[in-house]
Amino acid sequence: MSDGSFVSPAARARVRALAVPIAVGLGRLGLTPNGLTVIGFAIGLLAALAAAGQLWILAGLLVVFGGVFDLFDGALARATGRVSAFGGFLDSTLDRWGESLIYVGVIAGCLGVFNDGAVLAALAVTSASLVTYTRARAEAAGLHGEVGIAPRSERLAVLAVGLVITGLAGGVGPYVGLRPGDWISLPGDHRLVITSGQPWLALALAIVFVTSTITVIQRIWHVRGQAPGAGEPRR
Amino acid sequence: MSDGSFVSPAARARVRALAVPIAVGLGRLGLTPNGLTVIGFAIGLLAALAAAGQLWILAGLLVVFGGVFDLFDGALARATGRVSAFGGFLDSTLDRWGESLIYVGVIAGCLGVFNDGAVLAALAVTSASLVTYTRARAEAAGLHGEVGIAPRSERLAVLAVGLVITGLAGGVGPYVGLRPGDWISLPGDHRLVITSGQPWLALALAIVFVTSTITVIQRIWHVRGQAPGAGEPRR
Repeated sequence: MSDGSFVSPAARARVRALAVPIAVGLGRLGLTPNGLTVIGFAIGLLAALAAAGQLWILAGLLVVFGGVFDLFDGALARATGRVSAFGGFLDSTLDRWGESLIYVGVIAGCLGVFNDGAVLAALAVTSASLVTYTRARAEAAGLHGEVGIAPRSERLAVLAVGLVITGLAGGVGPYVGLRPGDWISLPGDHRLVITSGQPWLALALAIVFVTSTITVIQRIWHVRGQAPGAGEPRR
Repeated sequence: MSDGSFVSPAARARVRALAVPIAVGLGRLGLTPNGLTVIGFAIGLLAALAAAGQLWILAGLLVVFGGVFDLFDGALARATGRVSAFGGFLDSTLDRWGESLIYVGVIAGCLGVFNDGAVLAALAVTSASLVTYTRARAEAAGLHGEVGIAPRSERLAVLAVGLVITGLAGGVGPYVGLRPGDWISLPGDHRLVITSGQPWLALALAIVFVTSTITVIQRIWHVRGQAPGAGEPRR
């Protein structure tokens, strides 16, 4: 598919051909191409949760399973003539979202202790990137995606205020983002307990995360209104 | 600009008008619109480094400065008739990249100790998102951006292998990603020193980060080859 990829176009085509009978079988069970796209996203979400819980092998297997499952939505759409601009947009957007959330899960899992600043920053960058992506992807499909409550300048303004207040509130030690009561387990049954936290940065990141996520959903809804349809192949 | 945004279109138009004389002045100093785009990206990079170093107020001020500076490239391109498809693509891509790197800096700053797994995962998700974004943005401009060595299936395969090996290598404690010799400062001049690390997940994330970043640069180069030009307004 892509020039210079590790996998040849011929190998990709063979894998795609193998997916068709399974995809058609899933269609006979009553699943639509867009339904398969949403199930693929849910598998990515499970992989993210497994990584966050340090269940690394399960996370890796779910990543593989989700990657294979991702072939079926496009295969079913092509096989049943239900290719649509909205289906392609939804597939691209949820693939991007699912992959990003897996990395957020890896970040949470690597920390071993809940750090709300780091995790919220990872969630914020994921949703903020999707705000930008959904617009470009909609325009690439000849549609419009520029609605939403959280464009870039507003996100940056909220983040800047959070950063400056955090600094003015006395700066932060190495435990910024940790909340009182959080702990880190030490060897030999000891715990490092966090006794003070700094809420301002986490609050700003939470605002960016929530408003960006709402904007992404607004954009998916907006594109759906322009181009209703059933499903399109992954590009 | 965007329906439902916090800022009215009229207010945005007034701010844009204020930027024109400054932008033209910067142009008289010999700077091109694309040059201003690259400088804006560099300001974002500095904001990211400041956040990573827990210099929160400086980071916040650099975010504001970068946001204002971002008005000038488009204003100069429009004022001097140097609007181009490549300029718009470069502006969108570097704006997206710069904003994402700021969140990576916030993640690093929130940790207070270098955690290579979490930071590499944040870098990997940033570059992987840009691989997807550059293609959609190029296609939205009527160009092609599907070159590159790291499409989604390859990224996911590398990540899955890293996750499974990490699990098979005995799982990980709360210190996954920390390398031997890293330490966390504790109150009262004590340090929590990390005595064992787990390189596999970090290695997989580093491969995804590096190959994705190369792919993004390949795509920018590829788009530039199709549509050489000087600069275009931010959309």
